[in-house]
Amino acid sequence: MDKLRVGVLGATGLVGQVFVDVLARHPWFEVKALAASPGKRGLRYAEAVSWRLEGEPPEAVKDIRLVEPTPAGFSGEGLDIVFSAIPSSVAESVEVELVKSGFTVISNASNMRMERDIPLVVPEINPDHLDLIRIQGKTRGWRGVLVKNPNCSSAILSLPLKPLLDNFGVKRVFVTTLQALSGAGYTGVPSMAILDNIIPYIKREEDKIESEPLKILGKLRRDAIETPGISITATATRVPVLHGHLESVTLELASTPDIEEIKATMAKFRGKPQELNLPTAPRNPLIVLEGEDRPQPRLDRNAGAGMSVTVGRVRKVGSRDDSWYRFLVLGHNLVRGAAGNAVLIAELMLKTGFI
Amino acid sequence: MDKLRVGVLGATGLVGQVFVDVLARHPWFEVKALAASPGKRGLRYAEAVSWRLEGEPPEAVKDIRLVEPTPAGFSGEGLDIVFSAIPSSVAESVEVELVKSGFTVISNASNMRMERDIPLVVPEINPDHLDLIRIQGKTRGWRGVLVKNPNCSSAILSLPLKPLLDNFGVKRVFVTTLQALSGAGYTGVPSMAILDNIIPYIKREEDKIESEPLKILGKLRRDAIETPGISITATATRVPVLHGHLESVTLELASTPDIEEIKATMAKFRGKPQELNLPTAPRNPLIVLEGEDRPQPRLDRNAGAGMSVTVGRVRKVGSRDDSWYRFLVLGHNLVRGAAGNAVLIAELMLKTGFI
Amino acid sequence: MDKLRVGVLGATGLVGQVFVDVLARHPWFEVKALAASPGKRGLRYAEAVSWRLEGEPPEAVKDIRLVEPTPAGFSGEGLDIVFSAIPSSVAESVEVELVKSGFTVISNASNMRMERDIPLVVPEINPDHLDLIRIQGKTRGWRGVLVKNPNCSSAILSLPLKPLLDNFGVKRVFVTTLQALSGAGYTGVPSMAILDNIIPYIKREEDKIESEPLKILGKLRRDAIETPGISITATATRVPVLHGHLESVTLELASTPDIEEIKATMAKFRGKPQELNLPTAPRNPLIVLEGEDRPQPRLDRNAGAGMSVTVGRVRKVGSRDDSWYRFLVLGHNLVRGAAGNAVLIAELMLKTGFI
Amino acid sequence: MDKLRVGVLGATGLVGQVFVDVLARHPWFEVKALAASPGKRGLRYAEAVSWRLEGEPPEAVKDIRLVEPTPAGFSGEGLDIVFSAIPSSVAESVEVELVKSGFTVISNASNMRMERDIPLVVPEINPDHLDLIRIQGKTRGWRGVLVKNPNCSSAILSLPLKPLLDNFGVKRVFVTTLQALSGAGYTGVPSMAILDNIIPYIKREEDKIESEPLKILGKLRRDAIETPGISITATATRVPVLHGHLESVTLELASTPDIEEIKATMAKFRGKPQELNLPTAPRNPLIVLEGEDRPQPRLDRNAGAGMSVTVGRVRKVGSRDDSWYRFLVLGHNLVRGAAGNAVLIAELMLKTGFI
Repeated sequence: MDKLRVGVLGATGLVGQVFVDVLARHPWFEVKALAASPGKRGLRYAEAVSWRLEGEPPEAVKDIRLVEPTPAGFSGEGLDIVFSAIPSSVAESVEVELVKSGFTVISNASNMRMERDIPLVVPEINPDHLDLIRIQGKTRGWRGVLVKNPNCSSAILSLPLKPLLDNFGVKRVFVTTLQALSGAGYTGVPSMAILDNIIPYIKREEDKIESEPLKILGKLRRDAIETPGISITATATRVPVLHGHLESVTLELASTPDIEEIKATMAKFRGKPQELNLPTAPRNPLIVLEGEDRPQPRLDRNAGAGMSVTVGRVRKVGSRDDSWYRFLVLGHNLVRGAAGNAVLIAELMLKTGFI
Repeated sequence: MDKLRVGVLGATGLVGQVFVDVLARHPWFEVKALAASPGKRGLRYAEAVSWRLEGEPPEAVKDIRLVEPTPAGFSGEGLDIVFSAIPSSVAESVEVELVKSGFTVISNASNMRMERDIPLVVPEINPDHLDLIRIQGKTRGWRGVLVKNPNCSSAILSLPLKPLLDNFGVKRVFVTTLQALSGAGYTGVPSMAILDNIIPYIKREEDKIESEPLKILGKLRRDAIETPGISITATATRVPVLHGHLESVTLELASTPDIEEIKATMAKFRGKPQELNLPTAPRNPLIVLEGEDRPQPRLDRNAGAGMSVTVGRVRKVGSRDDSWYRFLVLGHNLVRGAAGNAVLIAELMLKTGFI
Repeated sequence: MDKLRVGVLGATGLVGQVFVDVLARHPWFEVKALAASPGKRGLRYAEAVSWRLEGEPPEAVKDIRLVEPTPAGFSGEGLDIVFSAIPSSVAESVEVELVKSGFTVISNASNMRMERDIPLVVPEINPDHLDLIRIQGKTRGWRGVLVKNPNCSSAILSLPLKPLLDNFGVKRVFVTTLQALSGAGYTGVPSMAILDNIIPYIKREEDKIESEPLKILGKLRRDAIETPGISITATATRVPVLHGHLESVTLELASTPDIEEIKATMAKFRGKPQELNLPTAPRNPLIVLEGEDRPQPRLDRNAGAGMSVTVGRVRKVGSRDDSWYRFLVLGHNLVRGAAGNAVLIAELMLKTGFI
Repeated sequence: MDKLRVGVLGATGLVGQVFVDVLARHPWFEVKALAASPGKRGLRYAEAVSWRLEGEPPEAVKDIRLVEPTPAGFSGEGLDIVFSAIPSSVAESVEVELVKSGFTVISNASNMRMERDIPLVVPEINPDHLDLIRIQGKTRGWRGVLVKNPNCSSAILSLPLKPLLDNFGVKRVFVTTLQALSGAGYTGVPSMAILDNIIPYIKREEDKIESEPLKILGKLRRDAIETPGISITATATRVPVLHGHLESVTLELASTPDIEEIKATMAKFRGKPQELNLPTAPRNPLIVLEGEDRPQPRLDRNAGAGMSVTVGRVRKVGSRDDSWYRFLVLGHNLVRGAAGNAVLIAELMLKTGFI
C-alpha cells in the first residue's frame, strides 16, 4: 500500500524528535511535513534541530524544510495525519485551527484532554472511545478530527489498572511516581536541581494522574464516558533518571484475589492493537517481572521497544481478607507515555476506519 | 564536669566515622577507645580508616590505636558508654559479650531490636522505654545494658507519626521510601547499579519499617510494650542520592483534622531532649516546610544539624469527610537515622540516671 | 570599627547568593543594598530569590528591598563597595555607569578583564596590580574604581603557577579542566545534557584560561603589566559534579627541580592576604595532598572554607633531565573562583588604602 | 560454512557478558562452552549470571552449563577459540594451562600483554603482529596460541595515533583520560565514591596507557617489535559515566600539518578488517565529528556499534610553526576497548589463516 503522509508539529522538541525517529522507519507512514516555532521556518530539519537522541536525525527527514504550524504551512502536502508535540500553552489555538481546516490531529499536548467529546486513548484499553469522534464532528462543526494522547504517568498507570478493574474491581489507588528527567523536556530540569537530589513535586502533574485514568478506563455509553468509581491520589516526584517513569502503586480492590491471579491477569492482558497486529503494538502490553528488585528504569524501560509496561513486586498488604495490594509499574515516558502511544493510536484509527 | 569516656565499635565503617566525627566535638563525651575488625588491631585510627567524610579524621582520635571489639580489648579504658556501628551479622555475639561484662552498649545494629526487654529508642518519642533496662537486667542476668537505635527509615517515619497518633489516632500507613546510598554503607551500592536508575527494593528493609515504628510508638505497660493498632506497609527504593531518606507517606487517621491542625501539631512537637536541652537535641524535631517542592534531600537533610526531620506537602486526600492524608518526610539517615540519634540516647540516659 | 556598607549586583543569581551568604556573616562588611533585574525591584530579597544554597537566606538580608542596578538605585545607601555578579552581557554598561558615579565596583563579570588599566586580581598573587587603579582614574576620568575578579578556572590555575614561575620558571602549560555544573549558573546545564555524560567544550572558557593567568602572573612595570612568556593551552570540559573545578595540568618548567622541591615550594606559598591576616584568607592558599587519588571535588572543594586550592599527584614526566611535570589542581569555583576571591580583594583594598 | 565453536572464560563478569551477548548473534561463531569461577560449576548460565545488560541473556546460551576454566572443563567441546575475560590475577595460570593444552586463547586480561612474543592487537593497526604466534610456538613450546587484547584506553588512544604516526610522525603525547565506570567492572566503583565527584586516579592504568600503544604501533622486524620513539604520559581519571572513555590528547608531531590534513587523514583511515569486510569491523574505525562539543560519551559511544572511535575538536596549539596539537577521542570501553576488539581479532585470525 502507499504510505500515509504524516506531519509533526513541534518537531524540534524532545518528544517531537522521538516522533520523527519512530515515524522515519514506520512501515505505513511517511513524514512529509515538519513544523516548528515560526523563527525556524524555512530551515532544513537537520539545521534547525539540536538532536538529542543517539546518532543523527534520520536521513529521510534531514532535508525537509520546516513550515509554520498552520493550515497554510501544511496545505500543500495532503497530509493524512498530523502528530502534535507542541507545548500545551500554544496547543489549543494551533491544533484547533488545523482541525477546523480538516486535519486529523493526534496530540500529546495536555489541553482539552478531559473534554467530553475528545477521545483520550490508550489503544489497548479504550479503542472504542474513538467513537467520540462522531460526536465531536457534530458538536463542534470541525471538518477534521482531534484525538488526545494521555499524560505519560497516566498512560503507564492505566495499563495495569485495566485488567484489575475488569477482573477484580478497583476502589482506591494511591500512587507515588518517580519520574524521569525527559518527562520535563530537554531543558526542563537543571542539573544543579537534581544531582544528588529528588524533587518531590511536579507542577500540574498530580491532577492529571488523578483524573485522566478515570476517563481512559471509563465506559462509552451513547455519547458520553461514564467513569468508574475509583479514587486516585498521586504524589509525583522527579528523580535523576534519564527515561522511564517508575510508579509505586497501592490499591484497594473490590475483591480479594491472590497474588498469582493478579499476576496472571496482567500477564495475559491483550487489546485491540495485539489483535490487529499493529506495527507499534508490543506483543505484551504488560510484562510481569519476577526479579525481586525489578522493574528498574535503566534495565526495563525499553521492554517491547518502549511500548511494554513492566510490573513487579506484586504483593498483598495486611491480612488474608484484606483487599489492599501493592506493586510497581514502569514505562518509557517518551514512547508508551508519548510518541509511541500516539503512533499506535494512528495505526488503530487507520485499521478501524477513522482515517 | 569530667567528660564521660566512650568507645566506638566498628569505628572505621561509614556510620562509625559519623560517630567518631560527632563524638570528637561533643561537650560531654570523650573518645577513649575505638574498635574495628581484628585485622586492624594496633593500627592508629588515621592509618586504618579510609575517611569518607569531608576533610580528615578529627585530631583527637587520629592516634588512637585500634583494639578488638571484646571486653578484653576495651578493658583498660574504664568506658562509660560503648557506641556500636558493627554489622548485624556479628553484632549479637560481640555486643552481648560486652554487655555481659558490664558495658553500656548503644547499638545501631539491627539484631535484637524487636526483643521485648530491649529499648528501641527515639528520644523525643519514647524516652520512658529506657525503663525496660531494669527488666533486661533481671531477665538476662546481664551486668551491663543494651539499648538499640532504630533502622534509619523507621526513626524518620516515627517522628511525624508520634504527634499524629497522640492527637488524631493513626489506623493505616502506606509508605514508599526513596532511600539514599549511604544507608547501604560505603560500598553497598555499585555505581553501575544506580547511575541513571532506581532500585525498587532494599533487602530486609521493609520488614523493619513495618514493625519498628510500632514498638517505638508503643506504650510501656508494666514490663512490656503495648503496640498501637497501626498497620504499616512499606515499599523501599534506593535512589541516586548521597544522604537523606525521603518517604512518601499516605495514612488513614482515626479522625478528620484539617491540614492546618496537622501542620501545627507537628510543628509544635517537642520531647524530653528539648525539655532537658540535650546538646544533640535539635530545637525542632519536626520542621514543617511550606515550599511546594520540599523537602528535598540535598537542601534539607542537614536541618537541625541533621537531627531535625522535615515534613512537606501535607495534604488531605479525597472528600471532606475522608480521613486519608498524604505528606513527605525527610531525615538524614546517618545522623537522625543512626549516629546522631544514638548519641542523643546516650545524653538522655545520662541525664535520666541510666548511666 | 564600623562595618563598611556594601551592595551586591545580581544578588539573586547563584554567584550573587554566595556573595550574600559570605557577606552576611562578614566581620568588616554589612550588606546594605541588593540589586537584581528591574522586574524584581521593590521586592523583599527573601521573596525575590530562589535560594539555591542550603537552608534559607541569611536573616540579615531577608527584608532588604531590591533596587535597580543603577547609581540612582544605590544612591541613598552610602555604599563603600559594590560587588557585582551580573552577567557579562549587561555588566559593561551597568558597572561603568556605577564607577563613573563614584562607586568602587569589584566585579565577577568577564567583560573588560583584559583591559590594560583594570586590575585582575588574585590577592595572593598580584596585590600590587591594584596600583593600576591610579592609572584607571587618570585615563578614564572615572570618579570610582573598577577591579575585576578572574574567571574561576583561571584563578584556580594561577595559584599553583605563581610559586612555580617564581622559583623554577614556566614555559608551557597544557591544561584539561573538568569543571563543575555551578560554574554555568543554576540553569546553565540541563540535567538531560550531563547525566551519564561529559561535555567536552565550554563556550568562551578556553580563551580566558589561556589569557587571564598571563595577566595575573604579570609584573607591573610603571603603568603596564608585562606578561610572562608562558604559553597556556586549555581544553575545558563540563562534568556532572556540583561544585569544584578539577584541572589536569601538564607543564614545562625552565629548570628541572625534583618533585619534593616543587611540593615544598607550593606548600609554603603565602601572600599578602596571609601576611595581613585578612578574614577571608585561608591559612594555606595551596594545600599539597599526599593521597594518591586526590584532590577529589566532593572531598576537597571546601578546603580552607573553599579558599584553599588543593594540589595532588605532582609527577615528573619522562627522563631525569626532562623539564615536563604533571599535577592536578582543584578549587571551589564559587568561592576561590568567584565570590570568595572578590571579597578577599575587597579586604585587601581596604587594608592597603584603596578603599 | 559451519560455525566455529567458541568458549568464554569469565563468562559471568561484565566483560564476559558483553562477549556472550556479541557472540550469541555472531555469523561465524557459536558459543559452545562457558566457564566461571569454580563455585558456579554445573549451573545453567541463566541461573548463575547476574545479567547487567539490557533485557535478558540470549536464548542460545541460557541453558549452557558452566564448566571450570581448565582444559578438562573445556575438553569435550572441540573449541576453536576461547575468549578470556577473567581477572588478571588468575589469568596467567588459567590461560597458559589452556594454551599448553592446545587452545587458541584471545584474552582481555592485562598480564603478559607486554611480553615480546605475544601479539597485542588492534586489528586495524597491527594485524601483522599475529606473526609473533610462530615465534611464540617455537619459544614456549605451547601447542596452542595466546593473543592479547589491549587495555581499553590504550586501544582507543592507539587508533587515532596510527594514521598520525604514519603520515606526520609523533614525538610526544600527553593524555588525560575521563574513564567510564564500567571499565572497573560492575562492582568496581562504589556509588558513594563517584556521585557528585571525580576520582583522579586509576590504579595500574597509567602505566598501561604509557606502554601498550608503543607496542601496538610498533613495527614487526623479524622476530621482535620495534617500538616507535614516542613518549606517552597519562593521567587517568574516573568519571560518573556508565560507558565510554573520553581522552583529552595533546601531542607533538614531527611535522606541522594543518588541521584539515589531520582530520582528512583520520577520516580516511582504514585497516585490514575493513579490507576483509570482517563482520565486526566498523565501516570507519575513526569518525571525525564536526560538532564543537563532541564527542560525548552518552551520544557517541555506540558509533559503529561501539567499534568506531570518534574524534573531535582537533586543534593546533600555539603559533603556525608549532607542532603541538590537541584533540579529544572517545571509544566504547567494553566494545572497542574489550570484547568487540577481541572478537575482531578472532575474525582476523580466521581469515588470515591463524585459526
